[in-house]
Amino acid sequence: MRILVINPNTTVEMTKQVEAALNKVKQADTILDVTNPSSGPDGLASACDEIVSGYEVLKIIRNTKIEDYDGAIVACYSDPGLVAAKEICDIPVVGIAETCIHFACLLGRKFTVLTSSRERIPSKELYVRNAGLESRLASVRALGVSVVETTHDPARPKDAILEVGKKAVVEDGAEVLILGCAGMAGYAEDVEEQLGVPVLDPSAVALKTVEGMVRLGKKQSKVAYFAQPPKLCV
Amino acid sequence: MRILVINPNTTVEMTKQVEAALNKVKQADTILDVTNPSSGPDGLASACDEIVSGYEVLKIIRNTKIEDYDGAIVACYSDPGLVAAKEICDIPVVGIAETCIHFACLLGRKFTVLTSSRERIPSKELYVRNAGLESRLASVRALGVSVVETTHDPARPKDAILEVGKKAVVEDGAEVLILGCAGMAGYAEDVEEQLGVPVLDPSAVALKTVEGMVRLGKKQSKVAYFAQPPKLCV
Amino acid sequence: MRILVINPNTTVEMTKQVEAALNKVKQADTILDVTNPSSGPDGLASACDEIVSGYEVLKIIRNTKIEDYDGAIVACYSDPGLVAAKEICDIPVVGIAETCIHFACLLGRKFTVLTSSRERIPSKELYVRNAGLESRLASVRALGVSVVETTHDPARPKDAILEVGKKAVVEDGAEVLILGCAGMAGYAEDVEEQLGVPVLDPSAVALKTVEGMVRLGKKQSKVAYFAQPPKLCV
Amino acid sequence: MRILVINPNTTVEMTKQVEAALNKVKQADTILDVTNPSSGPDGLASACDEIVSGYEVLKIIRNTKIEDYDGAIVACYSDPGLVAAKEICDIPVVGIAETCIHFACLLGRKFTVLTSSRERIPSKELYVRNAGLESRLASVRALGVSVVETTHDPARPKDAILEVGKKAVVEDGAEVLILGCAGMAGYAEDVEEQLGVPVLDPSAVALKTVEGMVRLGKKQSKVAYFAQPPKLCV
Amino acid sequence: MRILVINPNTTVEMTKQVEAALNKVKQADTILDVTNPSSGPDGLASACDEIVSGYEVLKIIRNTKIEDYDGAIVACYSDPGLVAAKEICDIPVVGIAETCIHFACLLGRKFTVLTSSRERIPSKELYVRNAGLESRLASVRALGVSVVETTHDPARPKDAILEVGKKAVVEDGAEVLILGCAGMAGYAEDVEEQLGVPVLDPSAVALKTVEGMVRLGKKQSKVAYFAQPPKLCV
Amino acid sequence: MRILVINPNTTVEMTKQVEAALNKVKQADTILDVTNPSSGPDGLASACDEIVSGYEVLKIIRNTKIEDYDGAIVACYSDPGLVAAKEICDIPVVGIAETCIHFACLLGRKFTVLTSSRERIPSKELYVRNAGLESRLASVRALGVSVVETTHDPARPKDAILEVGKKAVVEDGAEVLILGCAGMAGYAEDVEEQLGVPVLDPSAVALKTVEGMVRLGKKQSKVAYFAQPPKLCV
Repeated sequence: MRILVINPNTTVEMTKQVEAALNKVKQADTILDVTNPSSGPDGLASACDEIVSGYEVLKIIRNTKIEDYDGAIVACYSDPGLVAAKEICDIPVVGIAETCIHFACLLGRKFTVLTSSRERIPSKELYVRNAGLESRLASVRALGVSVVETTHDPARPKDAILEVGKKAVVEDGAEVLILGCAGMAGYAEDVEEQLGVPVLDPSAVALKTVEGMVRLGKKQSKVAYFAQPPKLCV
Repeated sequence: MRILVINPNTTVEMTKQVEAALNKVKQADTILDVTNPSSGPDGLASACDEIVSGYEVLKIIRNTKIEDYDGAIVACYSDPGLVAAKEICDIPVVGIAETCIHFACLLGRKFTVLTSSRERIPSKELYVRNAGLESRLASVRALGVSVVETTHDPARPKDAILEVGKKAVVEDGAEVLILGCAGMAGYAEDVEEQLGVPVLDPSAVALKTVEGMVRLGKKQSKVAYFAQPPKLCV
Repeated sequence: MRILVINPNTTVEMTKQVEAALNKVKQADTILDVTNPSSGPDGLASACDEIVSGYEVLKIIRNTKIEDYDGAIVACYSDPGLVAAKEICDIPVVGIAETCIHFACLLGRKFTVLTSSRERIPSKELYVRNAGLESRLASVRALGVSVVETTHDPARPKDAILEVGKKAVVEDGAEVLILGCAGMAGYAEDVEEQLGVPVLDPSAVALKTVEGMVRLGKKQSKVAYFAQPPKLCV
Repeated sequence: MRILVINPNTTVEMTKQVEAALNKVKQADTILDVTNPSSGPDGLASACDEIVSGYEVLKIIRNTKIEDYDGAIVACYSDPGLVAAKEICDIPVVGIAETCIHFACLLGRKFTVLTSSRERIPSKELYVRNAGLESRLASVRALGVSVVETTHDPARPKDAILEVGKKAVVEDGAEVLILGCAGMAGYAEDVEEQLGVPVLDPSAVALKTVEGMVRLGKKQSKVAYFAQPPKLCV
Repeated sequence: MRILVINPNTTVEMTKQVEAALNKVKQADTILDVTNPSSGPDGLASACDEIVSGYEVLKIIRNTKIEDYDGAIVACYSDPGLVAAKEICDIPVVGIAETCIHFACLLGRKFTVLTSSRERIPSKELYVRNAGLESRLASVRALGVSVVETTHDPARPKDAILEVGKKAVVEDGAEVLILGCAGMAGYAEDVEEQLGVPVLDPSAVALKTVEGMVRLGKKQSKVAYFAQPPKLCV
Repeated sequence: MRILVINPNTTVEMTKQVEAALNKVKQADTILDVTNPSSGPDGLASACDEIVSGYEVLKIIRNTKIEDYDGAIVACYSDPGLVAAKEICDIPVVGIAETCIHFACLLGRKFTVLTSSRERIPSKELYVRNAGLESRLASVRALGVSVVETTHDPARPKDAILEVGKKAVVEDGAEVLILGCAGMAGYAEDVEEQLGVPVLDPSAVALKTVEGMVRLGKKQSKVAYFAQPPKLCV
């Protein structure tokens, strides 16, 4: 099967990291096309970035022969443009945040989302509430490391993930940790080993989920929330 | 005071209707600049439209001397781009949906939102849940009339509002009705008289709210959810 | 327009403070009649006080030519007698707590209510839950200063508001602070400047809200929760 | 033990009905003093009535040698003045609504409250939400019979209870019915037999609960929500 | 009346403690048969134990002439097998956890459950959420003492209850404490005296509740959640 | 990889159906061992059956060389014994209900669960609430067909699924249907085609999910809710 993976920011380095991480866990017969927009933010750090990135995600979908794909992934933990992408596609589309929070609920009663900066906490909490999973959320905690730093300076985020993740487990009762930024993905294994709880790379979870959807022949329902728009303006 | 009112769709006729409605209720010393984008959807009928319109709203703000205004209103019941607009502005910005649902809670225990089509129900319900007001929502009911029809054929929406609004009151326990589309605004008075419950035109409510904010010297808090973005990509 | 403002306690000094504060923000053409009962508690510090004050509020309304007013405000953060006042009046009536918590939701994702003493925390939390806004509440925090002290010794409450308000922002994630007692009103401006988040005086918010209601010709719905009582016993 | 039972309305006939019903189920060694105020509403039909009745309940408590009692019951399904009564008493005080909704949860997953008129539905729903039991509520349904009629014309309420109660079971999934008015109490047995679900007379449930509290030596906690008021104004 | 009390674990010492505690508070005419299974866990410390104990509870009920009893109590704070026991019995059956959390809500706005070990916190929280009472829960706190230790070494649990209970009151706002293990029952009185808040022994609360049910002629509704199973496999 | 699939009831025919359904969607390299207990209920129709089946599931796990498997599935929509199974296993264990409700949330805003009989509705609703997904639940609807009939008479359940499923979509706003019984699995494809919404066979979803977990090297967290029991009594 052929899966389109859209990193919604312009940082090519992050696109490559996502591609490498997904190649490790994909099914043998899955072909991945990992791409990113050429304009828009280099990392999502605001609702403003989410709108612009969401718009770029939609343009990529419109400019791609989407019918050549079996599924698509929006690979940024803000899931920018996701609802719209599900509307305009006739193939299964998933976001890495939505798949990961639901998957986390199978592994523990409560999970913590690690995010870059303190200012992002309300939007990450709200995202979980939207999904209905607020009673499963131990906490959202900030690393104090920006999205782009996460990509460029590997040592800093790892130390921060370990320190903040430990607090989540000990103080908040987290049983599962979610690395709430595609750029943190590389640290999952090490952190998991040191903290003794499952640590999830959302992109990897999203890939296995969409592969499952394709295999089961399922895609988003088109009768209400994800109904095909009457007109397309993108 | 000077208020920027952005109709996020391209239908000039609707912009004029909003302007006329707001001129009736504005304070004597309020100056309104009512505008709309030149590209994007002609009425919001999908999450896809919301992304595109949200993007257009942000561009209007960026291309306006926003510091010349005391406040701003996003005048579409989907509040497209609202969180981002609050982030990038240093003046009070409100959406007509958010102000109206909170205002409705002062007038009755439960309110109903009237929307255009059945497919929009989940997103309108989710909007109320986001605000935390799901326990105050009697129902979201669809008129089966599109946003643009609402503007062009005045008789049809009025009949639909009366019929569906009555069901909301009798069957769902609604005590207040919200006309969940800027284009339905003109019918509030007539419907209110016939159904005997408050019927709210969200644009008018938003204007009085933002006038109050300006008078009180209040605007959105910039410490977390609406923090100024570190970089601007729009 | 003519607005009746009822301070539900017997402390004339507090009535005057409220009057002074409201005069600063009222519309030019708004005439305020600010009054208080001659019997009942001198400050509300218990559910018992709320019942007695609520009863006094109803008696004031019954003994006033209420039809000469365009709107009314119950000006105590416990909103004593508010639901009953809405029932028996045919003009818009608002409480300062209800208007302020809804207004706060337009300015930030989460707000904190500052109250006088620790014992009042559960009732303030419950009030927010009644409104349906528990997911928007960062915390209720107590100053450890009684309602009456708040009025008589200006230095103490201010220091307490600053200290406790800061904790609310830093530890609880509050983006907006509500001064949960009419007597704290005078400190809003100073505290806002020092803490960098909106600090709300509920009486002022209520006045702008009721002025807006009057201008829009709206009042509480009389079909269910605020239905006119079949008989009046007050 | 000695229990004070306060019917908060002035209808002596209803006081006698409550007394008769409680005498049937009390422990042998329980002595009941059943009383009612001489002023206030003759049946509670509004929030306004609740304030006045609440005030009367507090006055009865203040004018009684309350230390001669082991417990007290506020015997009206609106629980008027209950929180205040718990504050000012040092003996266990319960309301018939609060005890009954919690008791109902032991007998079935979902319960329905039958109330007199449609206008009372929002306040009854809100009462359940206050208690936190909204997920256990099948519905609140109105009989369309006033509180006083309930007392004076026995045939009408019984037919209404049977008809509306059946709808609650069949359409709303109610497993338990609560007769949400002290005056409906006499019909519990007959209705239960005909509908095949537990039908609760709240006064009787309250009596057994307060007897249990007295036997266990428990009363309301005085550290926060029910703290002794610093001053008493009643 | 005759009440069957099932301690679902095999520790005879605990059965005797429960019996002694219940004998102190039972009505004069109540006859208690307190029993325990001969196989299964000696104290419930996992969901696995709950399944096994639940199965043993059902076998005890099946092997008892249950029609000789007026009511039954499952006397372990995990309420193992409770829903099933309610299904298969035609007499009122209660669990000590369910009765105690509802009873606690009559005594204070928020309660804390004390449990043995940290690992049990999620299941105790979930139990409260199942009941719908999550908004009434101050916290679940662990003593760090195993269920069996609780029985065998009286000094340790008491110190732990005092220390952890105090934290619940001061830090979490608990107004009522629940001793969330049948084995902690003996300490209620002492702890209550020292901490100044009601401290509940769940078994005692359950006994008074089931005595009340029997006296009122009520038992669990059999129309839905507790419907008689079509076939019995135990 | 090697997956143990436990049908918790004794109906061998249903075990074979599950095996056949899973063989169609499994990865090429997945080896399935599908089994069922030899004693216990032949289909789960009560909480009593759930306890007995849960116990049987635990015994199967204990009597199996579980370390030879990479993952396990409890294949009955009641997920009997699931939490306990997750506790005692060191490999990923999933239930078909939990995986399916989370998966459904990726395909639509609201889902409906189809269950066998009306009496099972409360427990199915509660299961969804436990997961925190009550805001995503359109409804639970009963087919009026027993679990065993579902297996033995293929025509009847299919007609019922079509009729009841259509009501869920049209009246309740369901966007996704879950076949809430392993025995209904064979009808997913046909029903999906006729109703135009995704129809989920929970067993198939669970298989893809556990295959994904194995591939990602994830299993349930053992630090709290699913902690290894200190002693094993099964």
